[in-house]
Amino acid sequence: MKTDRFQAFSDGIFAILITILVLEFHIPDYQPGRLLPALLAQWPLFLSYAFSYFYVGTLWLFHHDYFSMLARIDRNVNILNLLMLFSITLLDYPMSLVADALTSGNRADMQTAFIVYDLVALFISATFYFMYAYLHHHQELKSHAMSNDFYAAIKFDPVRSVTIYGLAILMTWWSVWFGAILLATGIIFHFFAYLRMSKQMARSKGAVTHD
Amino acid sequence: MKTDRFQAFSDGIFAILITILVLEFHIPDYQPGRLLPALLAQWPLFLSYAFSYFYVGTLWLFHHDYFSMLARIDRNVNILNLLMLFSITLLDYPMSLVADALTSGNRADMQTAFIVYDLVALFISATFYFMYAYLHHHQELKSHAMSNDFYAAIKFDPVRSVTIYGLAILMTWWSVWFGAILLATGIIFHFFAYLRMSKQMARSKGAVTHD
Amino acid sequence: MKTDRFQAFSDGIFAILITILVLEFHIPDYQPGRLLPALLAQWPLFLSYAFSYFYVGTLWLFHHDYFSMLARIDRNVNILNLLMLFSITLLDYPMSLVADALTSGNRADMQTAFIVYDLVALFISATFYFMYAYLHHHQELKSHAMSNDFYAAIKFDPVRSVTIYGLAILMTWWSVWFGAILLATGIIFHFFAYLRMSKQMARSKGAVTHD
Amino acid sequence: MKTDRFQAFSDGIFAILITILVLEFHIPDYQPGRLLPALLAQWPLFLSYAFSYFYVGTLWLFHHDYFSMLARIDRNVNILNLLMLFSITLLDYPMSLVADALTSGNRADMQTAFIVYDLVALFISATFYFMYAYLHHHQELKSHAMSNDFYAAIKFDPVRSVTIYGLAILMTWWSVWFGAILLATGIIFHFFAYLRMSKQMARSKGAVTHD
Repeated sequence: MKTDRFQAFSDGIFAILITILVLEFHIPDYQPGRLLPALLAQWPLFLSYAFSYFYVGTLWLFHHDYFSMLARIDRNVNILNLLMLFSITLLDYPMSLVADALTSGNRADMQTAFIVYDLVALFISATFYFMYAYLHHHQELKSHAMSNDFYAAIKFDPVRSVTIYGLAILMTWWSVWFGAILLATGIIFHFFAYLRMSKQMARSKGAVTHD
Repeated sequence: MKTDRFQAFSDGIFAILITILVLEFHIPDYQPGRLLPALLAQWPLFLSYAFSYFYVGTLWLFHHDYFSMLARIDRNVNILNLLMLFSITLLDYPMSLVADALTSGNRADMQTAFIVYDLVALFISATFYFMYAYLHHHQELKSHAMSNDFYAAIKFDPVRSVTIYGLAILMTWWSVWFGAILLATGIIFHFFAYLRMSKQMARSKGAVTHD
Repeated sequence: MKTDRFQAFSDGIFAILITILVLEFHIPDYQPGRLLPALLAQWPLFLSYAFSYFYVGTLWLFHHDYFSMLARIDRNVNILNLLMLFSITLLDYPMSLVADALTSGNRADMQTAFIVYDLVALFISATFYFMYAYLHHHQELKSHAMSNDFYAAIKFDPVRSVTIYGLAILMTWWSVWFGAILLATGIIFHFFAYLRMSKQMARSKGAVTHD
Repeated sequence: MKTDRFQAFSDGIFAILITILVLEFHIPDYQPGRLLPALLAQWPLFLSYAFSYFYVGTLWLFHHDYFSMLARIDRNVNILNLLMLFSITLLDYPMSLVADALTSGNRADMQTAFIVYDLVALFISATFYFMYAYLHHHQELKSHAMSNDFYAAIKFDPVRSVTIYGLAILMTWWSVWFGAILLATGIIFHFFAYLRMSKQMARSKGAVTHD
């Protein structure tokens, strides 16, 4: 099976998800003449939106670079990919929950909202783990064999992420803000993991073929 | 007519539908500090969402594999495809209805919601029946002739599904939960029917050409 | 300029519009146990949705077949196309208005809603008129010259549609139902105009080249 | 890295954003028989929608023409592009804010809404500035070298836009309507800047190669 519809479908879902996040912005109730303070009070929504956009954008970069090494896909890749995209579409809801809980400022609700976000992030990273493992064992799908170094370099990224988000869940019980910082760290970590994977891929490719 | 715009348009609709399902998640009304129980009470929405995502995903897998055998399309395929996509986009609404009725727990409303879902599922399967029949009689559209075995193997799948969903409608009058189980069975059945079709296609292809 | 991004962007807009129409379905307010009658009372929404889906689907078929004759596009085609897509995206709102007004059953409101729908339909047909005229005068964009017969055969379609929708606006003042029937006729007429254009295109193509 | 997924993803986001703008149209509350005046009172929404559609459409035209000169992309282009698309998706919210504030007619709220729109527009233009600068310094990504004249001709466009939107922000404090006119001027200016860039590109291309 060729990769074109696989990629078009995935790109479509990423593009839609990253765009509909913006639909969570609703005009707040405000007294005439008081739109400015009402908007400023929406900072949690903007923050949650910016982080989630950055997160989904990074996941797309991963998807884009990682799958560029495939010459074709099989049925299992398609199914694993649907599971991965399922986990990613779930992000829209915790984004709103976090914004809402931060706005109200209630400690228990913030804990709940952050933990839901953590759980979805953990689920996303877990699907990457399975995808990496599956494709490592199916080198025949790749346009050129990737060196073992490549898999060795990236296979612990999802494990690290799952650990970070797991810790964030525990930490959130103790301190909402520590938990939030760990969550933010996890998301920012993805971006650097992406940069590293991207470089490693170029190197592994270079070692085998000058494509 | 080439298949590229046909596939891009279909992929677009599948990608959008599967993503906007998530827009049905709305933050529930909750007392400060009571977000967690309010979220847990949303289990019907999550269940209905997960099933519907799985369903639309399976339908995409069917569409992806099945149409990969076409070298070109004609006007009738385009029109039948629009009808098929119409039936699929309708899923968004019964997904909410089922979630809403399960949340309220009223027996008559659950019956109504499940039957609407059954009807849409029955309609979807019926459009597959017509598509299979049409393409079987237009082998000239295919990139290589499929053996009669292939059509023989798949042509009863939509009939079986229509039967399951028809039974589910009847059963729902007698017992909501039996009806719900039949509906879930029908959706899971699609996934196995897909796996079988996919294998059968590979075999039929292999029999004629080594593509 | 190649046509691929032009087509991908247009397909994207068509696919999104035809799918988000379904977001206008909202669960009605209902007493426990009264979901069924509440849903049956939504027939205007379903009718309006089915017609609008059929309408947008037909417009996509037009776009798909008509632009398949282009080898490349220029800046003006891109701009005219954006205007055409603008007019089409407007359909989402009158679809809701018509459903809402039919539900309330108030005569003046139904007149208003139908006339807004008529105006959007008239605008859409007008953009097709300009597109047809522009491309007729820029044969150099086409992959093979279309005979004059082709333009002669299709150029009056948008004029006819504009006339039908103009009459529908006038008629609606006199009788809402006559106006509604004219609107429905106009939309169904598009489908037959599409079938005719599609056949005419095949013939004009055949006359020049066996592509 | 090839440009196809990069373009498909960007086209997807543009197509979705330009289409979901229409979701901001909501049926107003109205007394039976009073739909027409209620719709006429929505002129700010229609105006804001039409301008925003025109704006996003122009940005797509820029994106389409400008990136057609690239033979491949690198990681930084992908990241800059995500930033650019982020700034563009933000437009959906100020579009509603402006419509809402114009409807209420409160001076302070209109100032707030226009300034938020100005800020987003300023942000968008700033991302174009960085993209132009980056690609000018990475001629190796282009399918053929663009003359220095080309960069000289376009590099001040984003600077001019940033200046216009900056002035619009200041002006809005003094007079809402002057500020609004400057904002509208800025958006219309983009369209003419696009026409000029498009011509300049054709000329620069012509100077080097007859592609």
